[in-house]
Amino acid sequence: MPVDRLLPTQEAEDLLELTRDIADKELATRVEEHERAETYPEGLFRTLGEAGLLGLPYPEEVGGGGQPYEVYLQVLEELAARWAAVAVATSVHSLSCFPLFTFGTDEQKQRLPEMLGGSQVGGYSLSEPQAGSDAAALRCKAEKVDAGYRITGTKAWITHGGRADFYALFARTGEGSRGVSCFLAPGQAEGLTWGKPEEKMGLHAVPTTTANWDGAVLDADRLIGREGQGLEIAFSALDSGRLGIAACAVGLAQGALDAAVAYANERTTFGKKIVDHQGLGFVLADMAAAVDSARATYLDAARRRDLGRPYSRQASAAKLVATDNAMRVTTDAVQVFGGYGYTRDFPVERYMREAKIMQIFEGTNQIQRLVISRGFAR
Amino acid sequence: MPVDRLLPTQEAEDLLELTRDIADKELATRVEEHERAETYPEGLFRTLGEAGLLGLPYPEEVGGGGQPYEVYLQVLEELAARWAAVAVATSVHSLSCFPLFTFGTDEQKQRLPEMLGGSQVGGYSLSEPQAGSDAAALRCKAEKVDAGYRITGTKAWITHGGRADFYALFARTGEGSRGVSCFLAPGQAEGLTWGKPEEKMGLHAVPTTTANWDGAVLDADRLIGREGQGLEIAFSALDSGRLGIAACAVGLAQGALDAAVAYANERTTFGKKIVDHQGLGFVLADMAAAVDSARATYLDAARRRDLGRPYSRQASAAKLVATDNAMRVTTDAVQVFGGYGYTRDFPVERYMREAKIMQIFEGTNQIQRLVISRGFAR
Amino acid sequence: MPVDRLLPTQEAEDLLELTRDIADKELATRVEEHERAETYPEGLFRTLGEAGLLGLPYPEEVGGGGQPYEVYLQVLEELAARWAAVAVATSVHSLSCFPLFTFGTDEQKQRLPEMLGGSQVGGYSLSEPQAGSDAAALRCKAEKVDAGYRITGTKAWITHGGRADFYALFARTGEGSRGVSCFLAPGQAEGLTWGKPEEKMGLHAVPTTTANWDGAVLDADRLIGREGQGLEIAFSALDSGRLGIAACAVGLAQGALDAAVAYANERTTFGKKIVDHQGLGFVLADMAAAVDSARATYLDAARRRDLGRPYSRQASAAKLVATDNAMRVTTDAVQVFGGYGYTRDFPVERYMREAKIMQIFEGTNQIQRLVISRGFAR
Amino acid sequence: MPVDRLLPTQEAEDLLELTRDIADKELATRVEEHERAETYPEGLFRTLGEAGLLGLPYPEEVGGGGQPYEVYLQVLEELAARWAAVAVATSVHSLSCFPLFTFGTDEQKQRLPEMLGGSQVGGYSLSEPQAGSDAAALRCKAEKVDAGYRITGTKAWITHGGRADFYALFARTGEGSRGVSCFLAPGQAEGLTWGKPEEKMGLHAVPTTTANWDGAVLDADRLIGREGQGLEIAFSALDSGRLGIAACAVGLAQGALDAAVAYANERTTFGKKIVDHQGLGFVLADMAAAVDSARATYLDAARRRDLGRPYSRQASAAKLVATDNAMRVTTDAVQVFGGYGYTRDFPVERYMREAKIMQIFEGTNQIQRLVISRGFAR
Repeated sequence: MPVDRLLPTQEAEDLLELTRDIADKELATRVEEHERAETYPEGLFRTLGEAGLLGLPYPEEVGGGGQPYEVYLQVLEELAARWAAVAVATSVHSLSCFPLFTFGTDEQKQRLPEMLGGSQVGGYSLSEPQAGSDAAALRCKAEKVDAGYRITGTKAWITHGGRADFYALFARTGEGSRGVSCFLAPGQAEGLTWGKPEEKMGLHAVPTTTANWDGAVLDADRLIGREGQGLEIAFSALDSGRLGIAACAVGLAQGALDAAVAYANERTTFGKKIVDHQGLGFVLADMAAAVDSARATYLDAARRRDLGRPYSRQASAAKLVATDNAMRVTTDAVQVFGGYGYTRDFPVERYMREAKIMQIFEGTNQIQRLVISRGFAR
Repeated sequence: MPVDRLLPTQEAEDLLELTRDIADKELATRVEEHERAETYPEGLFRTLGEAGLLGLPYPEEVGGGGQPYEVYLQVLEELAARWAAVAVATSVHSLSCFPLFTFGTDEQKQRLPEMLGGSQVGGYSLSEPQAGSDAAALRCKAEKVDAGYRITGTKAWITHGGRADFYALFARTGEGSRGVSCFLAPGQAEGLTWGKPEEKMGLHAVPTTTANWDGAVLDADRLIGREGQGLEIAFSALDSGRLGIAACAVGLAQGALDAAVAYANERTTFGKKIVDHQGLGFVLADMAAAVDSARATYLDAARRRDLGRPYSRQASAAKLVATDNAMRVTTDAVQVFGGYGYTRDFPVERYMREAKIMQIFEGTNQIQRLVISRGFAR
Repeated sequence: MPVDRLLPTQEAEDLLELTRDIADKELATRVEEHERAETYPEGLFRTLGEAGLLGLPYPEEVGGGGQPYEVYLQVLEELAARWAAVAVATSVHSLSCFPLFTFGTDEQKQRLPEMLGGSQVGGYSLSEPQAGSDAAALRCKAEKVDAGYRITGTKAWITHGGRADFYALFARTGEGSRGVSCFLAPGQAEGLTWGKPEEKMGLHAVPTTTANWDGAVLDADRLIGREGQGLEIAFSALDSGRLGIAACAVGLAQGALDAAVAYANERTTFGKKIVDHQGLGFVLADMAAAVDSARATYLDAARRRDLGRPYSRQASAAKLVATDNAMRVTTDAVQVFGGYGYTRDFPVERYMREAKIMQIFEGTNQIQRLVISRGFAR
Repeated sequence: MPVDRLLPTQEAEDLLELTRDIADKELATRVEEHERAETYPEGLFRTLGEAGLLGLPYPEEVGGGGQPYEVYLQVLEELAARWAAVAVATSVHSLSCFPLFTFGTDEQKQRLPEMLGGSQVGGYSLSEPQAGSDAAALRCKAEKVDAGYRITGTKAWITHGGRADFYALFARTGEGSRGVSCFLAPGQAEGLTWGKPEEKMGLHAVPTTTANWDGAVLDADRLIGREGQGLEIAFSALDSGRLGIAACAVGLAQGALDAAVAYANERTTFGKKIVDHQGLGFVLADMAAAVDSARATYLDAARRRDLGRPYSRQASAAKLVATDNAMRVTTDAVQVFGGYGYTRDFPVERYMREAKIMQIFEGTNQIQRLVISRGFAR
């Protein structure tokens, strides 16, 4: 039974139905195979792009779907309920278009339609091996040369790394926190090689990879915004990215809850369905309350974004609550299945593995707490 | 700094500002005195009534404020942030008007304007000493006699008991779960005596009392709905009541958070403000996320109610999440104050005592889990 | 049913039985009266002293009971299960004898027998209004004068303040962390006045008070150890004090568990005893596991102390776990009682109020976490 | 740095040192390879047996190590800190010798020396696909025939299934809970086939398998105890088995803590080692307190067992606390590592996967709560 959602328009209702349809047909049917074999789902992002799902929160004028975040995030959630890796990559793609859309020149923005239409998929390249949430510690260099910028250094933890067509790349054109610049980098370039994909605990179907920039030169018009504006650009996208992950975490938790409820209605112990044992029924109730609550939390932040109101604190709170809840809900979902839950015969063990990264990326949950608590210091 | 709220109309913005104003002037100034001395704030509910705060979620045609639950609950929240006992009594009053409004005849409804206008304050009388959440175990009898119904038995846990002007009273006119009826009982009657107020852990300013019905006779037109329709009436109001408590719990938690943040900016240890020690800053961050999340959760349920959509599961989840979070947040608020928090010099010890009852009344949190888990059984 | 304890000797078994006997007769019978009326139980500590319970962990040669900490703490636990304030004061008394016993001269130690025999009760005076866990921020001065030391300043949060006969007092004879000295101060002195007792959330029967030292002069032989050795002395007692509070917290939690189990066997809802509803039975199970676990944790630390092995990290962990568990267990105990638990008709609301201070004094639980995490830094 | 343990004898100290030595040489060096490749560590259990680690809690007269549970469990813990699958299989082996040792005839017991000496490894076969914790629902039949007992049915979740040399097998010789009997079954028999190993989330190196008994006949002298005594035998071993798992969970959590502490001393963010950021330091502190506390809890239960005192409730509490803590500690350990923790480059993601099964087998944690709460019903 689909989630009973509050949606602002009939168009949004239709979009969600379309999404569920695609998710059931294209994602649910392939997820197990690719997650197990750790293979990339060739062509899948093109399918999502053709369905219009890769540019939803951008205006129609630039090729986007013109949807408010409130709606876009619920689409992400539905994708995540079937295939977390694909939903996360979709969120990252959306994020990687943000610098160009927000800080690009009109000329640069002519690239947007193909990026938002899904014929090109994007990745985001801010982290480095020694610098995750601590963006000021970046070292990768962008040196001004005649032909543009020569990039030298190692970028890490790139979702879709080596597979995506373009990347929002952050590199140093100077010293200090005002010495970082943002580029729209191509996925292939002379002097760019991709590392072996990380061997992760989950999200196996979409690679996370290191990029080794060994002097590749980007054209000057690949610079987004001004030199030195990079961290400002990166930070301006953070809150949106956090909401994307919050939505993915809620979808994942919803998938785990649905699976647990279904199993609890089938499995019998001590002569009763396990859903009818209060000891397990109450576990399901706490899971459901955690899912409902996390969804309401990110939607509240999203509506603030849609209204143009401040939402940074709310985005951090949503990311924190949604991902901590997802970790708990998926761990409990395995518990509901007992020994069966510990096997790959059911998806819940995968959900639990997938939930863990949600607490870590787009700013660890410690970083979210730091953001919130700093907001309290006067 | 007031909570940054999403409100649907300018009228609602104005209403919230009015509420904060009244809450600051009439509640914040008196709460300490009455909560310590355990005395009733004479005249206060009349003041609230005159300001239009006692009939908010009812239509203007019957003397109400015509506000959606989404707005009404945020008003409750502001009251609770200053004085939980008053907010809870306001929620109970609102609940006690519900049977008449929903199941009363047109003639009976002529009483509504004075009830909603605040010249009369209401209480709710469902529980009995041996029957709290287990409404089918009620024993108090309503015997049909010539003059109406003779009431015999003991009702317990009545908020505002002995102080309110009218009560939604549930008593037995027959056997079984279809043998309970609902009455609009007066606060004074021959054959009705009120017990000594319970000595509670908190919420001292509004009494919680036992009513001893020793054959008092209610006029026949005091019956609301049909004989035997009592539990249906009671259950139909449950979800609304749960939302009221959820809002009170969020207000209480917000008050505790605000106090803790203020103190954390004043108090210095080890040469730094305590807000700047991550160890405590992260506690504040978790408190804030819990408050934001609980508020979003009840608002989501309220919007469903306002739209006429099913919201029972969401109301239970909101009550569960909001009150568990409030218990945690208020306990942590005391921690932020250290030894000072353990004294009556600061309000946080009171908030913590007040939070505990929220997990218990309007259906214990175990009952909420039962409601949610039963919804999962097929 | 008494707790099934592992005790090392028959003597210890007898001591525990004696303790339970005294606790039942002298504490359980008086606790409600004094905690409600906030009155001091005159003569009670003399009774405990005569029974030999006020010097248990000190050698028999100096008038103590010659018991290992493993046993002494279980005695404290039994006291706390009936009356937390008395158990805490007993722990503090024991702590206040520690500086003299450990750092005193032979001549000074001649005071020990009357201190340990209970004809004199002791308090501990380290904190100041602006300095709780942050002992280096102390300001109270001890100025060397001909007659000894002139004490000027304000000490705060003194358990048994104004009631005890002597105090381990820490005051500044110089600058910095090596400028604090320890004194054995009398309870009455010219130039010493006691503030109004703090109005606390719980532990009402034993006052917590501020001492105003306005130039009172202590004889030179009241100095314990060397000038400047004060913080060393204070810190050497910290771990023992933490174990005392851990034991008090476990006793309190055990009392709450026992009360909840008894009630759960009496109260019936939905046609079954509530102990037989899994939803509540599992709450009781988690409470029991938390109590068992906290007890085992402090006993492990105590056995290390008794064996002369390092136990500082274990003492901090025991204080942290025992008091966090006690807060949770007592809060859940109120829940088991439902509305009744929120009234003073049952002791559980008191237990919950008493548990909160355990997380705060003898080093807040944040300080315990700091101690443990610093031990990990290399 | 090895765990600072309280051990009762020098012999135990030596045994633990031997264990650490073997664990470092034989386990730590091979664990990654086998867990990744999901291959069985051929010969490893023979090595452990030769070192005397497979019969520790049994008397020397029958070939065991003559160690109290207090010591045996700490050995298990050290194994688990390097390789959870091996520790669990060791615990199961120990359990599988229990029926023969406790209920076997003198003649039957002549098999014990080779079982305890490690030349034969044992498995435990109680569960069936439809019957986990609900042992009375067993269906596998043992039909009396001339040659002994003909076994027909499917057994599931057998640790070491298909690899072990003998199994404690439970099958039905009659109806109802008194119709189950216990057998010492061989690992190979005509009419016995082993299913494909379960594809588990973790513990990959030791198979968990289904056994299909298709009329294999066991000699009559393979019956342990009397016909119908099976569940009594099974239940008598339960508490010991739970302690084994508790110890494995503590070892696993200790391994995760050690890894996290080491990493927190290496990794730098925002210019400081992460161990020095309170926000992460406090996470480590809570992890350490959880490990200390869980260890103390199982040791308390083990000492009761060693003293011949009741310990069933304590064993359930220990299993509950130790495994819930291990789940939390390992999940937080990944968090300390950030993105690196999510990869197979560090062992913490494996620890987290391994922790989950601990909450499930040897009685789910829901079953432990049921055991404890039933003990409270009068």
